[in-house]
Amino acid sequence: MNKDDLKNILEQVSSGELSPDDALLKINTEPYKDLGFAKIDTQRGVRKGTAEVIYGAGKTKEQICEIASSMLESGERSVLITKMDRDFVDYVKERIPLFYDSMSKIGIAGEKPKKSEFGKIVIAAAGTSDIPVAEEAALTAEFYSNNVVRLYDVGVAGIHRLFDNVDTIADAKVIVAVAGMEGALASVIGGIASCPVIGVPTSVGYGANFGGLSALLSMLNSCASGVSVVNIDNGFGAGYLASMINKI
Amino acid sequence: MNKDDLKNILEQVSSGELSPDDALLKINTEPYKDLGFAKIDTQRGVRKGTAEVIYGAGKTKEQICEIASSMLESGERSVLITKMDRDFVDYVKERIPLFYDSMSKIGIAGEKPKKSEFGKIVIAAAGTSDIPVAEEAALTAEFYSNNVVRLYDVGVAGIHRLFDNVDTIADAKVIVAVAGMEGALASVIGGIASCPVIGVPTSVGYGANFGGLSALLSMLNSCASGVSVVNIDNGFGAGYLASMINKI
Amino acid sequence: MNKDDLKNILEQVSSGELSPDDALLKINTEPYKDLGFAKIDTQRGVRKGTAEVIYGAGKTKEQICEIASSMLESGERSVLITKMDRDFVDYVKERIPLFYDSMSKIGIAGEKPKKSEFGKIVIAAAGTSDIPVAEEAALTAEFYSNNVVRLYDVGVAGIHRLFDNVDTIADAKVIVAVAGMEGALASVIGGIASCPVIGVPTSVGYGANFGGLSALLSMLNSCASGVSVVNIDNGFGAGYLASMINKI
Amino acid sequence: MNKDDLKNILEQVSSGELSPDDALLKINTEPYKDLGFAKIDTQRGVRKGTAEVIYGAGKTKEQICEIASSMLESGERSVLITKMDRDFVDYVKERIPLFYDSMSKIGIAGEKPKKSEFGKIVIAAAGTSDIPVAEEAALTAEFYSNNVVRLYDVGVAGIHRLFDNVDTIADAKVIVAVAGMEGALASVIGGIASCPVIGVPTSVGYGANFGGLSALLSMLNSCASGVSVVNIDNGFGAGYLASMINKI
Amino acid sequence: MNKDDLKNILEQVSSGELSPDDALLKINTEPYKDLGFAKIDTQRGVRKGTAEVIYGAGKTKEQICEIASSMLESGERSVLITKMDRDFVDYVKERIPLFYDSMSKIGIAGEKPKKSEFGKIVIAAAGTSDIPVAEEAALTAEFYSNNVVRLYDVGVAGIHRLFDNVDTIADAKVIVAVAGMEGALASVIGGIASCPVIGVPTSVGYGANFGGLSALLSMLNSCASGVSVVNIDNGFGAGYLASMINKI
Amino acid sequence: MNKDDLKNILEQVSSGELSPDDALLKINTEPYKDLGFAKIDTQRGVRKGTAEVIYGAGKTKEQICEIASSMLESGERSVLITKMDRDFVDYVKERIPLFYDSMSKIGIAGEKPKKSEFGKIVIAAAGTSDIPVAEEAALTAEFYSNNVVRLYDVGVAGIHRLFDNVDTIADAKVIVAVAGMEGALASVIGGIASCPVIGVPTSVGYGANFGGLSALLSMLNSCASGVSVVNIDNGFGAGYLASMINKI
Amino acid sequence: MNKDDLKNILEQVSSGELSPDDALLKINTEPYKDLGFAKIDTQRGVRKGTAEVIYGAGKTKEQICEIASSMLESGERSVLITKMDRDFVDYVKERIPLFYDSMSKIGIAGEKPKKSEFGKIVIAAAGTSDIPVAEEAALTAEFYSNNVVRLYDVGVAGIHRLFDNVDTIADAKVIVAVAGMEGALASVIGGIASCPVIGVPTSVGYGANFGGLSALLSMLNSCASGVSVVNIDNGFGAGYLASMINKI
Amino acid sequence: MNKDDLKNILEQVSSGELSPDDALLKINTEPYKDLGFAKIDTQRGVRKGTAEVIYGAGKTKEQICEIASSMLESGERSVLITKMDRDFVDYVKERIPLFYDSMSKIGIAGEKPKKSEFGKIVIAAAGTSDIPVAEEAALTAEFYSNNVVRLYDVGVAGIHRLFDNVDTIADAKVIVAVAGMEGALASVIGGIASCPVIGVPTSVGYGANFGGLSALLSMLNSCASGVSVVNIDNGFGAGYLASMINKI
Repeated sequence: MNKDDLKNILEQVSSGELSPDDALLKINTEPYKDLGFAKIDTQRGVRKGTAEVIYGAGKTKEQICEIASSMLESGERSVLITKMDRDFVDYVKERIPLFYDSMSKIGIAGEKPKKSEFGKIVIAAAGTSDIPVAEEAALTAEFYSNNVVRLYDVGVAGIHRLFDNVDTIADAKVIVAVAGMEGALASVIGGIASCPVIGVPTSVGYGANFGGLSALLSMLNSCASGVSVVNIDNGFGAGYLASMINKI
Repeated sequence: MNKDDLKNILEQVSSGELSPDDALLKINTEPYKDLGFAKIDTQRGVRKGTAEVIYGAGKTKEQICEIASSMLESGERSVLITKMDRDFVDYVKERIPLFYDSMSKIGIAGEKPKKSEFGKIVIAAAGTSDIPVAEEAALTAEFYSNNVVRLYDVGVAGIHRLFDNVDTIADAKVIVAVAGMEGALASVIGGIASCPVIGVPTSVGYGANFGGLSALLSMLNSCASGVSVVNIDNGFGAGYLASMINKI
Repeated sequence: MNKDDLKNILEQVSSGELSPDDALLKINTEPYKDLGFAKIDTQRGVRKGTAEVIYGAGKTKEQICEIASSMLESGERSVLITKMDRDFVDYVKERIPLFYDSMSKIGIAGEKPKKSEFGKIVIAAAGTSDIPVAEEAALTAEFYSNNVVRLYDVGVAGIHRLFDNVDTIADAKVIVAVAGMEGALASVIGGIASCPVIGVPTSVGYGANFGGLSALLSMLNSCASGVSVVNIDNGFGAGYLASMINKI
Repeated sequence: MNKDDLKNILEQVSSGELSPDDALLKINTEPYKDLGFAKIDTQRGVRKGTAEVIYGAGKTKEQICEIASSMLESGERSVLITKMDRDFVDYVKERIPLFYDSMSKIGIAGEKPKKSEFGKIVIAAAGTSDIPVAEEAALTAEFYSNNVVRLYDVGVAGIHRLFDNVDTIADAKVIVAVAGMEGALASVIGGIASCPVIGVPTSVGYGANFGGLSALLSMLNSCASGVSVVNIDNGFGAGYLASMINKI
Repeated sequence: MNKDDLKNILEQVSSGELSPDDALLKINTEPYKDLGFAKIDTQRGVRKGTAEVIYGAGKTKEQICEIASSMLESGERSVLITKMDRDFVDYVKERIPLFYDSMSKIGIAGEKPKKSEFGKIVIAAAGTSDIPVAEEAALTAEFYSNNVVRLYDVGVAGIHRLFDNVDTIADAKVIVAVAGMEGALASVIGGIASCPVIGVPTSVGYGANFGGLSALLSMLNSCASGVSVVNIDNGFGAGYLASMINKI
Repeated sequence: MNKDDLKNILEQVSSGELSPDDALLKINTEPYKDLGFAKIDTQRGVRKGTAEVIYGAGKTKEQICEIASSMLESGERSVLITKMDRDFVDYVKERIPLFYDSMSKIGIAGEKPKKSEFGKIVIAAAGTSDIPVAEEAALTAEFYSNNVVRLYDVGVAGIHRLFDNVDTIADAKVIVAVAGMEGALASVIGGIASCPVIGVPTSVGYGANFGGLSALLSMLNSCASGVSVVNIDNGFGAGYLASMINKI
Repeated sequence: MNKDDLKNILEQVSSGELSPDDALLKINTEPYKDLGFAKIDTQRGVRKGTAEVIYGAGKTKEQICEIASSMLESGERSVLITKMDRDFVDYVKERIPLFYDSMSKIGIAGEKPKKSEFGKIVIAAAGTSDIPVAEEAALTAEFYSNNVVRLYDVGVAGIHRLFDNVDTIADAKVIVAVAGMEGALASVIGGIASCPVIGVPTSVGYGANFGGLSALLSMLNSCASGVSVVNIDNGFGAGYLASMINKI
Repeated sequence: MNKDDLKNILEQVSSGELSPDDALLKINTEPYKDLGFAKIDTQRGVRKGTAEVIYGAGKTKEQICEIASSMLESGERSVLITKMDRDFVDYVKERIPLFYDSMSKIGIAGEKPKKSEFGKIVIAAAGTSDIPVAEEAALTAEFYSNNVVRLYDVGVAGIHRLFDNVDTIADAKVIVAVAGMEGALASVIGGIASCPVIGVPTSVGYGANFGGLSALLSMLNSCASGVSVVNIDNGFGAGYLASMINKI
């Protein structure tokens, strides 16, 4: 509610069109629905321009199901659920319509959104083990109706595989670079692309990888410009941001 | 050089329009100029769509001056120099045209670029001590001809100052959030904005701040979507990326 | 035992009211009961003004049960047990009266204390996954007869939910802010409240969260005054301290 | 502004006592003064119940002086300045009335507040090298008119010195425990006191002290209840919070 | 493809020996085979001088089997599989010829390579618990036809055991030193050997070992010259590099 | 073998008492027995003055059993096995005489050594959860025939329990202080004892305890003199060292 | 004061030999002298069996001088001052008798103690750069009248230098091993000595040494028994503890 | 001295050719010269196959000069001095012949060794700021008579500069990759080279670079085989090891 809205209301009160009590209600209308354990943001589609998302980790299957149901009832056509446990699928599927991808652990309650034709988002993954996080990013971007191109297994150990796809990189409107271990993929792509690159460090690796710290620091220190970073294994965050940039 | 270009050249060779030696030259033309201690990327404007930048830290005044001169001679109209030591200004100014801002330690060799009217980039800074990094971002964005709005001293300790500027945030095409200490500004802005937010953690603070680690981790773990992060104190990186997104 | 007490005893010895041996006993009475593996502090209610607590983690069900029994026999009306394994409940319930809350893993042996009317403690939690820690704080505060108000799911990603409760925050005598991920909730509440805020970082999150380090550093570096911090996931410590402050 | 205030205004508008434009002004009156590089919070005394404070580190002497002057002009009687560089004293003293303590690096612009008689705050410091931080806490607490008792050089290496002051500890309404190295002082005091204890880890020490990390972790893991922690070397934060608790 | 190759092709195009389209194919022939989830590098034997390796961790048994089969079909005689889960052995053995060593978790698909006589690689391990990593190095080196001498249980706690083998160390062409805990073995061997020493820190140990960090830092800071380090537990990397050096 | 021994041998060779070959054997006699996967140090009793110990973690039950058998056959009367898995007990007991303590996970193969009367070693443990590590230290010290006094549950949260035992502390010849969480026990004992104190940090605790790092740093930074530290959870190391000091 | 003492006093009160007030005084006699900023422990010689020490770092020259004077006046014959700034020497020398060693930064106020003949303490240092810390240990041990043998530059990079001194190591009653970089010296000596070894990690080194962390972790994880560790660069602590053990 | 040598000596003693005392001398001849503060290893040329090196950091100019003089007198023709302070040059030059390179801070006392023709060592550096470390490696390798090729400013931000030098990389016998920031250069070179690659992380960068930790972890986690790592900024170690490998 901006100043103009407020001025409008005040003028209606002044002119008698609106009683003080009704005005009070209008100004204070709760923009969310309260489930007790969670406050559902039913105006988020308006405020942020996108549908609500359920972060599945740490929630019980009952909580996930109840939140998703409530959203669908509030008029959402589809709800994205991230990091959703495989064991919850049957329980939820019995209660609400659900698409589930077991590699990325992404669920979509309600309708699966249609792909429409926004500029191309390229999702590049360094190794086979990085694919689950890359798919989380890819499915998230597709959920928001983006056109996604996947470039998997293009890590710098066999850098010619990446360079064979230089045209795809040149065509992208935004690129998500997913890599564990030393995370060099983000820097190398950042050095050849002319669009924003979102680095997603993964926890793939062992030893001095320290749960993804290695790739995270590597990407933050990228010597290439135009690279920014999201949290370790945060495929959703990268896909969401890529969609935001793609639609500007 | 993409496949079509290559095919063209090969067809010219086949038809005799081009000798093999001339073709070889065309394919292998060095895209940079070699100064010995630095290889200058004279085709970067083409490849990345932006002018070259000199990262000033760790370089001598002679090196900075020589690289900048060489770029200007190669046809660049203006060259951005970041983290440039204040003591180098006189030396460089005597040799090439230079604008210098001592707060952000940014120098611009050659012409100062004209502001043109791209969508609005908002640069928000939490505290007075974060302003040098914020200005590095702001001047970088302006160097690339973006329209920049500054919101300084809007940290969460006095959050009403931020909320007074909610309209500015709603209007932005991309926002840079600069904050040290606990770095909460990025999350709070990320929660209310509907455009991409680039977090810049600063090393401002003391004790368990650990040189910016606190704000860095905070921003990486932001519970708000649409937030990505660049390196600690990397105002340039944020300004550059913001410009890239703004121009999409 | 302070100097005045000691002087009293000495004067009684001098006047013959007390024999040296009885005096020795009075001065040296062991203020605890020794179970071999644990020394139970039977005078803690006097010394610290509160009943004893059993830290359940790392103890066997037999140890927990024996310590609690021994306390109840020593005259405690109720004993708080924190981080108590769900699998121990049946064993303990068969032996002593026990209330158990499975979300917070808090047990209360003996009588459940009555709520009395001290000033209001507000327990705010950022996300659904932070509720177990928040409940540990809430039940602890209620165990010590405080009036507790819960504000759950008010994290900064949807900051208007928090601001709808600004009156509750203004009314509080002390606030516990429970948050994982970037932990910004403590700073934001610290910026608008005029009472002490106790931050409880939680280990909720993943990746660069590093087991709660992110929220911990964030809260320690809070730019808002009046904020202090307890250990990661230490809901009990926050509830106990809030009770102490509330009763001043 | 709470709902009642708002309802009042709306009723005045309804009754014609207030025009919509005047109502709009009342609701939106900026609660701060804008200096460009800093937004001064002139209503903080009302909102947080205390006077504004200037965090001196990272600010120039001109900035400190301008902010303090502006506050005094806005009606503040005295302004606390923390971590103020010794070299700034002369510059500021020439322009506004200033008290300065070189050990704690605390400045007070305007009148020095009178001590009044609130319950006792005890400031305990482990070693001689911890005194500057302890004094920052003590002077802050005195600035807010608290009654402060200092217990210095009572570290656990000579624990009888602490136990000689057990009566002082028993009398306190809140205790600030300042310690570097292993920071055990907070735990030991926490074990014998029955009031809230605020731990301030200091960066005093060397080697595996890692800039105060050792004392910080030690205090966060305190096995004693009723202990919370502020940032390393944050004497101001502890003094401010102690005052808040003392006045409840 | 180097310049000479390219010139050759161009001359053939010029002379009409080669059509532009065929030339294009020659220049762009994909040097790998695409399985969708993995791009197999069929020219690696040529490019790096060694056969391809499958990093088994994080791959399913189906993926491992499909990649290995595809390589064998492409003409590889044997394929090395590292960190291969014991539970996968039966599945893979039913489909392709497989040798498997359960201590080192190394599998070899296809033929087991014959030992030939290159200079001696010594693999030294500090303790019994370091043997799995040491065997990963030893079997890798043998896979590439090197002559391997094992020196196990020669840690510095019983340093005479090492010195009894001083002749073996003097004869080596390259040494791999595998050690957990304090990792001193690499430094001690580095002090007496006159050939390159490759340190492999292991995660063996507990407490302040921090998952191998202790041995890693120790080896990186070795005061002996000629020592370099690979990742924690990376027996394969050490064996591969030792083979490379041995064959120079 | 020292110079005098060597001179003796050489003189016997010179006088013809000893042939060169026999001399060579004497000088080079292997001071250990080789099991392939482990070299057993049969002269350790002589060299270090104590019996050999098997570090059980990371070894299979077959390895533990074979090493212990071999030692007993070589003439050791008893062999200490640390961190021995509970599940191995039956297997080993069927093959060799074994005493096993399930709390400390210590096994003793062969005869249990008799207690003899060396000066008193005090083992102090802060909390109930620290007892397994404390018992590892205590049983180790008793294995080497020391007189051990246990002081358990004397942490600083109830410091009067410790002070009731001040006479025991004064009588000790060496003290082992076992504590997790903030580890303050080592400093407090170090401040009142006049003998060496060996700190054993434990991994007991949670959150910012970081697997024992908190107690480790705390003990290393102890402001009390005469305190040294062994690895986290290393009860054996402390008991062994205490025995060494006790027997000086 | 133990129970027997207390009983004695009480019996004297009972028999009229002592008035209650005098008894009170006896029980409460302050065991230290208060300088305001420091409480001097004048009974420490009795309680800990050694003279008081001043930790010089972080103290002004005036403070050091005043504390030392006060101790000498209280009857101490000599006072050890550690980590004393070179620039303070002249100031202190003008006021009290002072011996100063600029390499170790150790000062001795009053008389220099005479060497007497306790069992031998060996101080071993790995490199030339570790000598300042080694000398701090050596001079401390000599201050407490121990017989000290120095073995410098015996690091593991040239391990034969150490083995030439195997007899010296065999003769020692306690050994201090001082090493930076990878700190392997402590483990190697621990493997061949049969007496307690005190490791002192130093901050000597660079890069992944991280201010001494490398050597610290290395020593804590020593695979040799009988090794304990003090803080990084804490030569004083090692010398003090070595003296304690030497005199047992 | 190996077994054959020893047997020879013993046989000479047996035959009377050698007296026991002379034999003792032969066996025990000290292989170094003792300067008090340093033991100089005069047989190192024999034992390690290379001349001695002085690590200059932390040594005074007098120490450096005395050690170097002593070595030259012992017959060394030239002595390498690393990390030598610029301010020491004049002092040393007045006393012994010295070559000094101020960029790499390398000094060579005595004769400058002649370049001879061993296989090519390539030293690649990512950025201009990495050159000092790269030069330390290059001059070290040249000191040991290796043929060195420098590839500077070939970081991955402008990866075509690296690929223009693919022939140089293919020709190398060993490659040193020097890089700060994200250190991706080592992985990229490791992916295209078929010879050993030695990674040298540098401390170049800022923020989340954490003094070189970022590049260090990145290189340790390299997904390319054949890469090993030395300490941060350890140009000497890389040059020395490269020389060792080059001469195999």
